[in-house]
Amino acid sequence: MYELHFGIPMAGGVICTLNSRLDAAMAAVLLRHSESKLIFVDLALLPIALQTLTLISQSGASPPTLILISELLHDDEIKPLTPPQNPQSHHHDYEHLIARSPAAGDESIRWPEDENEPIALNYTSGTTSRPKGVIYSHRGAYLNTLAAVLLNDMVSNPVYLWTVPMFHCNGWCMAWGVAAQGGTNVCLRRVTAGAIFAAVSRHGVTHMGGAPTVLNIIVNATADEQRLLISSPETRKTKKITVMTGGAPPPPPVLHKMEEQGFLVIHSYGLTETYGPATVCTWKPEWDTLSPEDRAKIKSRQGLHHHGLIVDVKNPTTMHTVPNDGVTMGEVMFRGNTVMSGYYKDTAATTESLAGGWFRSGDLAVRHEDGYIKILDRSKDIIISGGENISTIEVEAVVFGHPAVEEAAVVGRPDEYWGETPCAFVKVRDGWVGKKKVEEEVMEYCRGRLPRYMVPRTVVVVEEGLPKTATGKVQKFELRARAKAMGSLPPPVTATAMVKKTAGSKRSKL
Amino acid sequence: MYELHFGIPMAGGVICTLNSRLDAAMAAVLLRHSESKLIFVDLALLPIALQTLTLISQSGASPPTLILISELLHDDEIKPLTPPQNPQSHHHDYEHLIARSPAAGDESIRWPEDENEPIALNYTSGTTSRPKGVIYSHRGAYLNTLAAVLLNDMVSNPVYLWTVPMFHCNGWCMAWGVAAQGGTNVCLRRVTAGAIFAAVSRHGVTHMGGAPTVLNIIVNATADEQRLLISSPETRKTKKITVMTGGAPPPPPVLHKMEEQGFLVIHSYGLTETYGPATVCTWKPEWDTLSPEDRAKIKSRQGLHHHGLIVDVKNPTTMHTVPNDGVTMGEVMFRGNTVMSGYYKDTAATTESLAGGWFRSGDLAVRHEDGYIKILDRSKDIIISGGENISTIEVEAVVFGHPAVEEAAVVGRPDEYWGETPCAFVKVRDGWVGKKKVEEEVMEYCRGRLPRYMVPRTVVVVEEGLPKTATGKVQKFELRARAKAMGSLPPPVTATAMVKKTAGSKRSKL
Repeated sequence: MYELHFGIPMAGGVICTLNSRLDAAMAAVLLRHSESKLIFVDLALLPIALQTLTLISQSGASPPTLILISELLHDDEIKPLTPPQNPQSHHHDYEHLIARSPAAGDESIRWPEDENEPIALNYTSGTTSRPKGVIYSHRGAYLNTLAAVLLNDMVSNPVYLWTVPMFHCNGWCMAWGVAAQGGTNVCLRRVTAGAIFAAVSRHGVTHMGGAPTVLNIIVNATADEQRLLISSPETRKTKKITVMTGGAPPPPPVLHKMEEQGFLVIHSYGLTETYGPATVCTWKPEWDTLSPEDRAKIKSRQGLHHHGLIVDVKNPTTMHTVPNDGVTMGEVMFRGNTVMSGYYKDTAATTESLAGGWFRSGDLAVRHEDGYIKILDRSKDIIISGGENISTIEVEAVVFGHPAVEEAAVVGRPDEYWGETPCAFVKVRDGWVGKKKVEEEVMEYCRGRLPRYMVPRTVVVVEEGLPKTATGKVQKFELRARAKAMGSLPPPVTATAMVKKTAGSKRSKL
Repeated sequence: MYELHFGIPMAGGVICTLNSRLDAAMAAVLLRHSESKLIFVDLALLPIALQTLTLISQSGASPPTLILISELLHDDEIKPLTPPQNPQSHHHDYEHLIARSPAAGDESIRWPEDENEPIALNYTSGTTSRPKGVIYSHRGAYLNTLAAVLLNDMVSNPVYLWTVPMFHCNGWCMAWGVAAQGGTNVCLRRVTAGAIFAAVSRHGVTHMGGAPTVLNIIVNATADEQRLLISSPETRKTKKITVMTGGAPPPPPVLHKMEEQGFLVIHSYGLTETYGPATVCTWKPEWDTLSPEDRAKIKSRQGLHHHGLIVDVKNPTTMHTVPNDGVTMGEVMFRGNTVMSGYYKDTAATTESLAGGWFRSGDLAVRHEDGYIKILDRSKDIIISGGENISTIEVEAVVFGHPAVEEAAVVGRPDEYWGETPCAFVKVRDGWVGKKKVEEEVMEYCRGRLPRYMVPRTVVVVEEGLPKTATGKVQKFELRARAKAMGSLPPPVTATAMVKKTAGSKRSKL
């Protein structure tokens, strides 16, 4: 995927990275919506890719050509699969294609004719009804890449550890950024404390990124895992490892512990629509002398705008900027070079999201006296679970499909391991008689129809029906309060041994 | 001048920085050519500014409004002048104007309507006949500023020592760059070893820039001066001071000595027409283990293109790229975002310099196998003296004005202190009888008509006339060889005591 961030644009194409956790149904929808001509598939994901292509064929469309990446990474932990001999799958081998191609010079690069041409298409949510494909331009990607490199103090020849997936906003633009600085990329199959510390120790990692979930994994590592890091005093003591965090508001206690462990955390905030990072909590030297708690509190702010765009907190109705009082809430809005070109094949959504000349994030924030913004809540209903965005509308669409369900609404419920997981509130049809408890049936039903991470971990039957506004709209605010009142879900018992290890008793409750 | 790099563009204006060594005649030409409305004058330069304005008035034009910066810098070494009471000079006081202005919010900034609008006008040479004013756009300045910050590994909160004048390509774009990274600016009235080391020690300088002349001052500092640096082990041993060099090819022995003294030198190359730095000798970690001599030799290469533009070495006739063989010479050419918009009010010169879609630098170079370029010679006749460009045509224009002179041509002669200084070859009119020797008369004549640094330090009478081509063009190549054969001029006896101190016996002959 890293190489393709360069090869595809240089061949005049648009790169559309897909979440490796998608199921075949959703992948098929996105491949068709994006009109992809080629699909590059890692060997580990071949079974789901073949299912996906079959689904596309069955729908009457012609599937993209499959190019298989069968060469495993060094020290790969996955069980090697034998490349399929299935005659139906007419595929090419990636390394073979590369080796067979003549050495290409500069003259074979297809430069964009206009810098505003698309370079990438990034889906914010895969839905059977309305996929939202965010279009990145060459210009925007270039500018936010340089900005991200600069604002994270990434000097030349960095060693970058990939814990942020490259399919999230092109790795927060770092897919291009690491190359711009002549860096080394260190990739992991699975993000665990052991794998992170081993990579840091072995490769002299200087920079990494990670959602707060990843920070949590780090601070809760076992002494055994930590030893790997300690054995590399050179990388730990003389140079601090810079960790860019984002994707969800990082809790101050986690920031504080990261600092204690010798990491330099830089907190960014943004959305797929802003090429990933769009604000950064720029650190001021005068804050160095504050107490660790105060420093963490400041660092949890979303901060100031990235180079390349402007951020504002506005009353979404009047479009007036809220005062810098740290109290008045408004919606976070962006304008500038690094705001998306639009949603692919969705003029209505594009127009709506950019109404008034500003991209409306849907996030509610205040602005402090020094101009730093602080997000208080998301006004949209997106659930962020383990760094993944989950559209409640998509989950609801499936839940509604179960014959027992009359009404359904999904909100996030606090989850000790994932941060949040979907919690479905349902009203059951009168007279329904099932084989099992409704709650269990709904979860089972979803498991067959949604990627695992989108399946509700909680289903609540509401006898009296869902709370609604006068106009009949479900009051999700009310449901979120109920979900919160239920308390945090404990770590999943179905998680793998590895997950359980890192999710052990040392985890602080946040 | 630093503040005005922001204030002028934010007020919708174009900043035109003038070389502080200009004489009144040349300053008047540039002020008229640029149609400047306001001139901001440091108290130390007031006498020459008043002369300049008088000259403009005498020519019948209306002079710009003078705004006097009378507040001296902290620790300023200059003898304070009393602001003039001259009723003729209708001036404003800078600090008074600022204090009197209402606090301005974001809404009072006059943003450019188009990013290609000009932000700066930089004169490459002040000539009475044809000043060349290079136009920088907001877009180009933005891009080269970020590139310069990135390629010099200038992380956030740098402490930047100004030895590169801000009137040279806006301080190689660092006027904006230091602000972009939240840095501290340390300014010097005079660039001497003592002042540099004192500033480094006192302010914890992390970055500075300097022409090879400045590097030479540093490596030849006295033990006394060096002691200032050694007394700050924190800044010297734990963090190396990064020195960006450019403006002329740095001799490898100087690069080597700088490294020995604990500086990290980054070598850039560019022209006023490329917003200053346009290539950088990007360092590869595998070169760390080479011998110091080999490292210095590599570092003296001009290197690879800056982000934001493309560099090529081409046959200027066929426009074919020369092979990467380290032997075949071609002209260095640039194309991209950070090539100037054009020369102000000079379409002919603009068209000529950009013929074929590439900006022609006039510098001759080879390209090594790894793509790094190395400049061998300047095909233009510009003399670079103490970091200043001197147009030989301008000097010749004055020399020609002396009644004794029949023919004249100026080339650079090696100079121990300045690198090069103008050397005039003249043919004297038959029958001329002067009061003094012709050589002395010509020098004296020039002193009254040129800024001091442009006055020839050598005048050679050529009895037989200047060597010419068949078409009557003077063969400057031949004259340069003669000037070189005369050997290096010793340090000027007219230099100040301070200059003499740094130009003492320890200087290596380069």
